[in-house]
Amino acid sequence: MRDDRVSMLSRSATLFGFTLAGVLGTAVGVRAQALEDLQTPETPLVLKAQGSFYVGGEKSEQTQVELGGLGPGGHITVDQMYVRYMVPQGGDGNVPVVMVHGATLTGKSWETTPDGRMGWDEYFVRKGHPVYVPDQVGRGRSGFNQAVLNDVRAGSVPAANLPPWLRFSDEVVWPNFRFGSKPGAPYPDSQFPVAAVDELSKQGVPDMSFGMPRPSPTIKALSSLATELRGVVLMGHSQSGPFPLDAALLNLSATRGLVLVEPGRCPDTYTDQQITALATVPILVVFGDHRDTPTGISTRPSWQLSFESCQALIGRVKAAGGDAQMLNPPERGIRGNSHMIMQDRNHLQIADLILQWIAEHARKRSADAK
Amino acid sequence: MRDDRVSMLSRSATLFGFTLAGVLGTAVGVRAQALEDLQTPETPLVLKAQGSFYVGGEKSEQTQVELGGLGPGGHITVDQMYVRYMVPQGGDGNVPVVMVHGATLTGKSWETTPDGRMGWDEYFVRKGHPVYVPDQVGRGRSGFNQAVLNDVRAGSVPAANLPPWLRFSDEVVWPNFRFGSKPGAPYPDSQFPVAAVDELSKQGVPDMSFGMPRPSPTIKALSSLATELRGVVLMGHSQSGPFPLDAALLNLSATRGLVLVEPGRCPDTYTDQQITALATVPILVVFGDHRDTPTGISTRPSWQLSFESCQALIGRVKAAGGDAQMLNPPERGIRGNSHMIMQDRNHLQIADLILQWIAEHARKRSADAK
Repeated sequence: MRDDRVSMLSRSATLFGFTLAGVLGTAVGVRAQALEDLQTPETPLVLKAQGSFYVGGEKSEQTQVELGGLGPGGHITVDQMYVRYMVPQGGDGNVPVVMVHGATLTGKSWETTPDGRMGWDEYFVRKGHPVYVPDQVGRGRSGFNQAVLNDVRAGSVPAANLPPWLRFSDEVVWPNFRFGSKPGAPYPDSQFPVAAVDELSKQGVPDMSFGMPRPSPTIKALSSLATELRGVVLMGHSQSGPFPLDAALLNLSATRGLVLVEPGRCPDTYTDQQITALATVPILVVFGDHRDTPTGISTRPSWQLSFESCQALIGRVKAAGGDAQMLNPPERGIRGNSHMIMQDRNHLQIADLILQWIAEHARKRSADAK
Repeated sequence: MRDDRVSMLSRSATLFGFTLAGVLGTAVGVRAQALEDLQTPETPLVLKAQGSFYVGGEKSEQTQVELGGLGPGGHITVDQMYVRYMVPQGGDGNVPVVMVHGATLTGKSWETTPDGRMGWDEYFVRKGHPVYVPDQVGRGRSGFNQAVLNDVRAGSVPAANLPPWLRFSDEVVWPNFRFGSKPGAPYPDSQFPVAAVDELSKQGVPDMSFGMPRPSPTIKALSSLATELRGVVLMGHSQSGPFPLDAALLNLSATRGLVLVEPGRCPDTYTDQQITALATVPILVVFGDHRDTPTGISTRPSWQLSFESCQALIGRVKAAGGDAQMLNPPERGIRGNSHMIMQDRNHLQIADLILQWIAEHARKRSADAK
């Protein structure tokens, strides 16, 4: 087994441009190979089905310039959502779980962890649930509408019309994702596998959410997916944390439970009528530890504010007679969980708590699910 | 079973903005649901392992503006390559196959076909091969370097510095991918599932290959992947068709066979020394039918020109004593295959021919594979 502490120091040293080899008296400056870190489960994974498909999408007529100039103008599809799925053998009757990633990320968030352990996608399948992992519209294999980029390039549209393309620096990820209060200095109890933080860095993709139509087409696509599957548990993370709520409001009968993992915010703008509707769907909110860490992001000074916004929402839903609760691991003596809780070292412990909640709270498939 | 002909007409009609419902006297204007089209195999898929990881990547220091403005400046990773993999139970000893997609596409090309049939990724796994499916650097879950976009947006870099972002229109795909000579008019023997052509349209993502470093970082990443796996069959398609050749030249001992599926071109620029090197690796080139179709793309008037460039390369490699050959299905009486041959209706028939070639030609793992 690798010495995580030395390896972690080594990675941090690499990140900050120096090597600790001399200090430690051994050559630890080489980054571990991601592929070599992959762990093989003890038992095989038996799937009834696996594959991928798209949900949604609209036709857009574009000029030759908008299509990049190589071929003639015409129609393309935009705003479609890629979904990869795995159905366990014998798991047809269990509630499907849809796992949606956060800002600057893709469905990769839920797959193999940065240090090579099984992702939640496979773990939930092994626990009997069909699992569906989308890439949000505008990112990853869902693509994005490139027309404005080529129009700006051609000079027919002002550069200011470009959306911002967001990525988080490795340095800001440490406090923002709560691995530690500053880069390279993990909390003593940090559950994130910080030795592999460079592998998390590779998961980053440019995020033009601020240039997307509002509301995000991902929300409608999630509702369509839930409808086609005749009932699902919708799980969001971070920026997509509130998406399950908004998707549920588009078709309540197709949502059997909502799991909000470290949502960036829980909206305070729902009407009483919307809260009454949400009170018909079981809701679980999950947050990790160290929420008071200053994030370094001006629009969200701390995740404690997100936590409190969700406590407020839970309060409103419960007052309307709903089944809503907070899963706050520190209250159970589970310390050190990060914002990337699905990749933390104790990620299966957290998954088991969510699976237990699903077993105890998720609604039965309604006869009239449409 | 769906009436493919009616459904095909329906899809084409939808694409061109009118409905045939009145003409046919029945409501066929509704597009079939992609999810409902998914076919479930008769036997389960048993995997020793599955998951994903990244290969390669470089640190890039960027300003707050270049990172989209939400957080402070710092380092991010760019030019990494996402890879999804499946290892069949009991298939450890068989040669892994790496499947690389073409222009404006992602690894989705090799997954579930547009009409819901099993993709080559799963089929090769079921035939015993570990399969690795990357997204090319710059697309899909591999992400791209967004710095120039945000610099242009801020006005510090001229808009002309933007790369073109390429997509093919639905209309040009018909002749360019050789489903038919014009949109909505499939060849009578077309093997492409044209009723589902709108689902192929959804697979398109913006492609900024022309803005990538040269040679593409994907080539080095493929060679690194081959090296880490201690020997693979490298399969490229279309724009990535020549990548297996270039990756092999970076580490010959890690390439056990090269399969070029409908390559956009076979380079005529290799030196005699490079040809001598390539002559040590078995090479198979695969092309479909109707190659004389005018593509509508000025830089490649027909795929016959691509075919002939590969015949020329095969000739050079064979003259140097190599094992190189063309798989030309029409010569075997197999007609109507398209550019998207891995999605054609007879895609498993073509896959079987490639699998047979791998079994008979792929090199054994060399003892000195490094």
